[in-house]
Amino acid sequence: MFLCDVGNTSYHFYKDGETFKESVALFDPSSIKEEVVYICVNPQVLTLLNKLQNWKNLDRYIDRTNYYETMGVDRIVVSEMIQDGIIIDAGTALTVDVVKNGIFDGGFIYPGLYAMQKAYKDISSHLDYSFNFECDLDIMPKNSQDAISYGYLKTLQSEIIRHDMAIYLTGGDAKKFAKIFPDAIVDEMLVFKGMKKIINVHKELIC
Amino acid sequence: MFLCDVGNTSYHFYKDGETFKESVALFDPSSIKEEVVYICVNPQVLTLLNKLQNWKNLDRYIDRTNYYETMGVDRIVVSEMIQDGIIIDAGTALTVDVVKNGIFDGGFIYPGLYAMQKAYKDISSHLDYSFNFECDLDIMPKNSQDAISYGYLKTLQSEIIRHDMAIYLTGGDAKKFAKIFPDAIVDEMLVFKGMKKIINVHKELIC
Repeated sequence: MFLCDVGNTSYHFYKDGETFKESVALFDPSSIKEEVVYICVNPQVLTLLNKLQNWKNLDRYIDRTNYYETMGVDRIVVSEMIQDGIIIDAGTALTVDVVKNGIFDGGFIYPGLYAMQKAYKDISSHLDYSFNFECDLDIMPKNSQDAISYGYLKTLQSEIIRHDMAIYLTGGDAKKFAKIFPDAIVDEMLVFKGMKKIINVHKELIC
Repeated sequence: MFLCDVGNTSYHFYKDGETFKESVALFDPSSIKEEVVYICVNPQVLTLLNKLQNWKNLDRYIDRTNYYETMGVDRIVVSEMIQDGIIIDAGTALTVDVVKNGIFDGGFIYPGLYAMQKAYKDISSHLDYSFNFECDLDIMPKNSQDAISYGYLKTLQSEIIRHDMAIYLTGGDAKKFAKIFPDAIVDEMLVFKGMKKIINVHKELIC
């Protein structure tokens, strides 16, 4: 059995401790014949997967009582794994969710690394830089690359540390963001661990 | 004589206390025969204006000693107007500059309102919302529109208020941002006041 977390740009697969990614634009999910238990935030892909017998949507087994209606299922799954803390999931979008005493306390959505880089580039060719994760966020910048890096990273950092909670970092860009959250617990498997936890509760129904 | 602040998307004119805007994409600057003293951060427009005799670039009269080389001239002009404070210029880009004892202390660049809205929309149709400036930034959001509004506005607010300085708000979207910075001094004329100040020092050379 595969686990699969479908995001806005990638299928992220897990099996026996190994992971791999496929592009949403290029991958044909019917090419997998084995059973796949998945979650999906991409509406186009969801329509496709609904037609495949061996792709089983975990979403229908998730208790959404403590969450809001339109909340992405990936955020719910990682939130289910934490008792107290703030979870940063750095993917195409960067989601930030707070859990207190095992209960979801709210969260926000920030653009992911590449979405934000494109936003700056689209404003002006003068702002077409990659982000400098080594930028000193303790002093105000005096060059263009650091001015946009600080704009993206320091604003996020200021808001996150204000909560004074344990920080959990997951998602494809987790390691990059670990540079600005040095005390964070980095766990790129958090979503799959959350999926397994839900599968274990509903084992007889799903498998 | 007109004053003109050319940004990434608009020509912003000033004369005798009145202002008006023209689109960078549509406006022909040679249609103005009167003298114009301007600043310009748009490289394409700059090439065009360099050819026009009656358009005089204020940039050559600005002392950049206290600023960095690639810093936008509009940021320098507004920074010249403040003795102590943090200046938010909310345009296509949103620039944030700190001035201490009349000296520029550094600054950062954040996407403007529409650039950021587009960044969310480009990630997913699920994130295609306008920002809710009435969103309560003291609690973590539990709906999609507030989740992106908080992501854009609260991160900025957390970083700005951390500086504990007087806040000056200018630029086309200044009034919108005044909702999240209620103590800010809103002055949409700050750039023109700064231009006038520099013109007055170099009056004989320019006019």
